[in-house]
Amino acid sequence: MNEQISTYIISASEAKSMAESKGLTVPQLLPSLIKSAQHLARPPISDFRVGSVGLASDGRIFFGGNVEFPGLPLHHSIHAEQFLITNLAAHGGGSKLLYIAVSAAPCGHCRQFLQELRGVSDTQIVITDQPQENPNYNPISSILPNPFGPLDLLDRETPLILEKHDNQLTFKGNLDLSNVSTELVKRDEEELKKAALVAARGSHAPYSGCPSGVALMDCEGQVYKGSYMESAAYNPSMMPVQAALVAYMVAGGGGYERIVAAVMVEKEVAMVRQEETASLAIA
Amino acid sequence: MNEQISTYIISASEAKSMAESKGLTVPQLLPSLIKSAQHLARPPISDFRVGSVGLASDGRIFFGGNVEFPGLPLHHSIHAEQFLITNLAAHGGGSKLLYIAVSAAPCGHCRQFLQELRGVSDTQIVITDQPQENPNYNPISSILPNPFGPLDLLDRETPLILEKHDNQLTFKGNLDLSNVSTELVKRDEEELKKAALVAARGSHAPYSGCPSGVALMDCEGQVYKGSYMESAAYNPSMMPVQAALVAYMVAGGGGYERIVAAVMVEKEVAMVRQEETASLAIA
Ligand SMILES: [Zn+2]
Ligand SMILES: [Zn+2]
Repeated sequence: MNEQISTYIISASEAKSMAESKGLTVPQLLPSLIKSAQHLARPPISDFRVGSVGLASDGRIFFGGNVEFPGLPLHHSIHAEQFLITNLAAHGGGSKLLYIAVSAAPCGHCRQFLQELRGVSDTQIVITDQPQENPNYNPISSILPNPFGPLDLLDRETPLILEKHDNQLTFKGNLDLSNVSTELVKRDEEELKKAALVAARGSHAPYSGCPSGVALMDCEGQVYKGSYMESAAYNPSMMPVQAALVAYMVAGGGGYERIVAAVMVEKEVAMVRQEETASLAIA
Repeated sequence: MNEQISTYIISASEAKSMAESKGLTVPQLLPSLIKSAQHLARPPISDFRVGSVGLASDGRIFFGGNVEFPGLPLHHSIHAEQFLITNLAAHGGGSKLLYIAVSAAPCGHCRQFLQELRGVSDTQIVITDQPQENPNYNPISSILPNPFGPLDLLDRETPLILEKHDNQLTFKGNLDLSNVSTELVKRDEEELKKAALVAARGSHAPYSGCPSGVALMDCEGQVYKGSYMESAAYNPSMMPVQAALVAYMVAGGGGYERIVAAVMVEKEVAMVRQEETASLAIA
């Protein structure tokens, strides 16, 4: 009945026609896509597949699944909701998140990370594994009442996640890529470096003032970039390697072993440093 | 009026007499201790002091303050509530948390970590910076409705945080401490190793099956141990180095530069590995 979809983004027109063919509105369609989202999950530690499906204000549908990394501490894990937000931040062009369906009750870490979207308390959420047969949408504020959030620390003008960031970062000298040996990477070295810089410029790091970005290259020379995104509550922040891996998966990137090079850009002297931790994740 | 207290634990008799002298019950006393808890915080990145004060079922009062580590990713931060739970887990002897006062609305990460205490939905919480003049206690369930928690993944018999753990771990051979050079540590090498093993045995790691523990030694030969504590939601887990640093601070340990050695114990082949990340924190 619910055919499997193996994509991380559905266009607005396709979303509309899918909903119409079932006699549903697009928000009503989201729960029927949860199984497809769960199929995108990569949880080798827990084997507990979580899926999330979101409707953006531009009419497109964005997917997310949880991702776990054996051999690393658990804070390297990407939750389905955080995957979806990272997907939306990278490809949404500033669109807002209007509706979100998740397969299981979001954890507190994700409820907190969602606060980083302006006005998210009005975003409507439905949890599909709930006991009642037809679970309803409720505002995010109903699952994290009295939240601690960005406006407890920032002024209203500071851009939040999904809003345009332009951190003033430039290379001081030549980035050392001497430990990168493949011919492929050498050819595209400049592209890889620039992508990491672009990612760092787009980073959401208003709390530490330490933006960062990562660019990955696969064995075919494709480049994927990820911007670090901070949470007002610090710990739920999205690390730049994880964000780049989300970009890799969204692009249909396959196994991690296809990633052959990585570049990370951050301030030379930074209060919050990602370099060593990023190296763990891509070792 | 509210005299400053520079301790992380108040005895039951002292708590009772402090409350009586003010004509209060002990739960009513907790908010008046928040300023002392905030004073214990060490937040060099945010400069945002959060304090938490908890009443345990044995009548003792436990404190916590937020702790941040410049130069490390933000997920190394310890929140005030997590500090308090780590303090209670290490020194509470199995006591439950009945009441908790916090200076600011807990973030979602902490609301999630609190789920790791059995029956925490009935624990009463008061947030002291709220607009109303006399904020009231409310159950934890009111700030994280419809939670994702341990019982979504574990059976009811698995011990949770604050309950007795005895992970079957032993040393396979001699632990290599050859990179530790001070005479002090050589003398007390066995003690340091044993403390790390005891901490790992007491670790709460039911989700990964990968318990771990850290022991730190200061320049006077005092040993402080910390057990890794997992969250059902993975990312909010408490890393073992951080737990050991909490033990160091609770004991009145002073500056981190006084720590001269560290030992970490985990399984040789572990799905969740702390070693490299722990090394970052104590470098
Ligand atoms: Zn989550
Ligand atoms: Zn917190």
